[in-house]
Amino acid sequence: MNSDGERRARVALSFLAKPGDPVLGAALRTRTASEVLALVTGADADGDALLVGESEDVVLSRAVERWRDRLGEIPSTARLAAWQDSGLRLVMPGDPEWPTQLDDLGDTRPLVLWVRGTGHLRLACVNSVAIVGARAATGYGQHVAIELAAVLAEKGVGVISGGAYGIDAGAHRGALAAGGDTVAVLAGGLSFGYPQGNRALFAAIEAQGVLVSECPPDSRPTRPGFLVRNRIIAALSRGLIVVEAALRSGALNSARHARELCRPVMAVPGPITSEYSAGCHELIRDYGAMLVTCAADVLGHVVLGTGGAETAGPRSGPATARDSLDPAAVAVLEEVPVRGCRGPASIAVRAGVDLDTALRCLGMLAVGGFVERCEGGWRARRSGSVGGLPH
Amino acid sequence: MNSDGERRARVALSFLAKPGDPVLGAALRTRTASEVLALVTGADADGDALLVGESEDVVLSRAVERWRDRLGEIPSTARLAAWQDSGLRLVMPGDPEWPTQLDDLGDTRPLVLWVRGTGHLRLACVNSVAIVGARAATGYGQHVAIELAAVLAEKGVGVISGGAYGIDAGAHRGALAAGGDTVAVLAGGLSFGYPQGNRALFAAIEAQGVLVSECPPDSRPTRPGFLVRNRIIAALSRGLIVVEAALRSGALNSARHARELCRPVMAVPGPITSEYSAGCHELIRDYGAMLVTCAADVLGHVVLGTGGAETAGPRSGPATARDSLDPAAVAVLEEVPVRGCRGPASIAVRAGVDLDTALRCLGMLAVGGFVERCEGGWRARRSGSVGGLPH
Repeated sequence: MNSDGERRARVALSFLAKPGDPVLGAALRTRTASEVLALVTGADADGDALLVGESEDVVLSRAVERWRDRLGEIPSTARLAAWQDSGLRLVMPGDPEWPTQLDDLGDTRPLVLWVRGTGHLRLACVNSVAIVGARAATGYGQHVAIELAAVLAEKGVGVISGGAYGIDAGAHRGALAAGGDTVAVLAGGLSFGYPQGNRALFAAIEAQGVLVSECPPDSRPTRPGFLVRNRIIAALSRGLIVVEAALRSGALNSARHARELCRPVMAVPGPITSEYSAGCHELIRDYGAMLVTCAADVLGHVVLGTGGAETAGPRSGPATARDSLDPAAVAVLEEVPVRGCRGPASIAVRAGVDLDTALRCLGMLAVGGFVERCEGGWRARRSGSVGGLPH
Repeated sequence: MNSDGERRARVALSFLAKPGDPVLGAALRTRTASEVLALVTGADADGDALLVGESEDVVLSRAVERWRDRLGEIPSTARLAAWQDSGLRLVMPGDPEWPTQLDDLGDTRPLVLWVRGTGHLRLACVNSVAIVGARAATGYGQHVAIELAAVLAEKGVGVISGGAYGIDAGAHRGALAAGGDTVAVLAGGLSFGYPQGNRALFAAIEAQGVLVSECPPDSRPTRPGFLVRNRIIAALSRGLIVVEAALRSGALNSARHARELCRPVMAVPGPITSEYSAGCHELIRDYGAMLVTCAADVLGHVVLGTGGAETAGPRSGPATARDSLDPAAVAVLEEVPVRGCRGPASIAVRAGVDLDTALRCLGMLAVGGFVERCEGGWRARRSGSVGGLPH
């Protein structure tokens, strides 16, 4: 699906349209990225003939005009290469690292994701929760965010947040301290790295987890950009926890996205005398959010399982029957130990496949719930361990 | 219904059976108190012939044996008179001061209530909430109990609690500070006055509200007695709020009673790091208790209206049609001002009735939602003001 031409066209479009532009998402339902780009550049002489449907005609034509004004934003091949040399990678729908649960966003699905870090975005989000909340968090809120994230991370749950001060930073720090997966979805570009005061935290996330953004690497975050970004935090997760939030906090916007995406919304209570718990109490009282006081409560509400679209509710064993695995995957799985860990190169040699194949198979097996990562490699997951979590 | 003989028999039985004894309650469904007492004293030669039904035979006969062992506990007329001289009054089912919502307790309905204080038990409970919680409350919990009780009392809601240290004391103090009604339901006798450290609080409640107990005045509270007492707190109220409670706290027992009696159960959240909020969080998370953060939340859950059995859910005006009032009540109602207040003696003179009749009518009109007390007297309630509260 993702030919080089299509990849280049998607990247180009991501510099023209605003993040989450539903007009572009709708256009990409019936057209390739190259076709849409051709409409904008006018490179296709029959460009207008590609438009179908009267109402789409108008909406799309206007959008194409807007995008055309920004053609100068498309970076040169050299600039793209420089970003990639600086440690950024591009992940697109259909790529192995693409988290398929983002497809739940429909027409507002990100065009591309810029990713930086040693973690594997898709695997980190397979079993994950979002932990979000106030930037101006209290000591209580930060303590709770760190504790909750650390215990969840210890149990193999990825912690997704927005890289902001306060609750977000506490969530990332807790997951890092527990040696777990964490994913920071930034509202600005990854090279811009907002907020600057969290640079050290971002470096730690890069070394152990993943930094993600749908925005061009150099772009500065905008106020509406934070709200648009929140849909990605909600969509990546299997459930969203608000630790502290004032009334009308941005965290409540994330909760609304989670609710719309059918992700369980959870909230941590706090003193009724604290304005930073008022939003949490409102979520519980008026919007049916579940009150959680510990990681066990969270695991009771979040159905963990395989990543994205292939999931269909709770289950009691690996999602993919072992019988349905391809021969290479079966060979690889045979060489993943139940106790201890084995590195991918060693697994590849023993399974008689090349390293790329081994890595592809391991990723697929992890998504299927057969294997999990451990320090220095992989180990087989005990049968039923996923379904054994309370729900 | 309450002839002198029946009253004396009820009082005697209340010294023989334990509070809330369902065997006695069941026996009183088909027999008068005098008849049951006759079974115990053997005064009725045909005593055994009064027993009906084989299974009741056995259960009641055994209970009668137990009660017979305690015949020596029945106080002399002089002792009863001394208690009444000390400011205690006896209130029984059918009396004007009897809160008819206690009838919801069925066979565990109290036989009699000992009451002390200037308040009117039935009127204080017409629109009331119970506020209960941990004895070893935190500063946060006490602050919340006082605030919540004060604001509710200011809005004319009676505050019912158990007279214990901690949350209970805070609830009574808040209501007193706001000049409102408060009812302390003690687990021991009113003359015993447990806990002793709350003696000054009890004196303040006596001066402005009501102290209540179903136990003989001199009786010492027992551990099971606290749990049995909790049913009265729940039954008197239109809703119960737990402000702070550790797991396995007695306040959770009160919440269970409230749930069984179909009274809304509410809980105040607190820090998840506080063991004294753990019971509240459990109520919200696992038992469907409603999270409340302020008096407005409470009023949104509690349907205020007329007292006891004559209530049938929410309503938009006084429960009793004005047409159904007796002529004396109509005459009294005519003389209760809509603005300002008028004392009962003045109302009696203007209405052309004696003071006792005026007081009886005012009580009835208050229960019917037509009038309400104010400083120094009574005023007419604006039509629809009760139903105008959010619910």
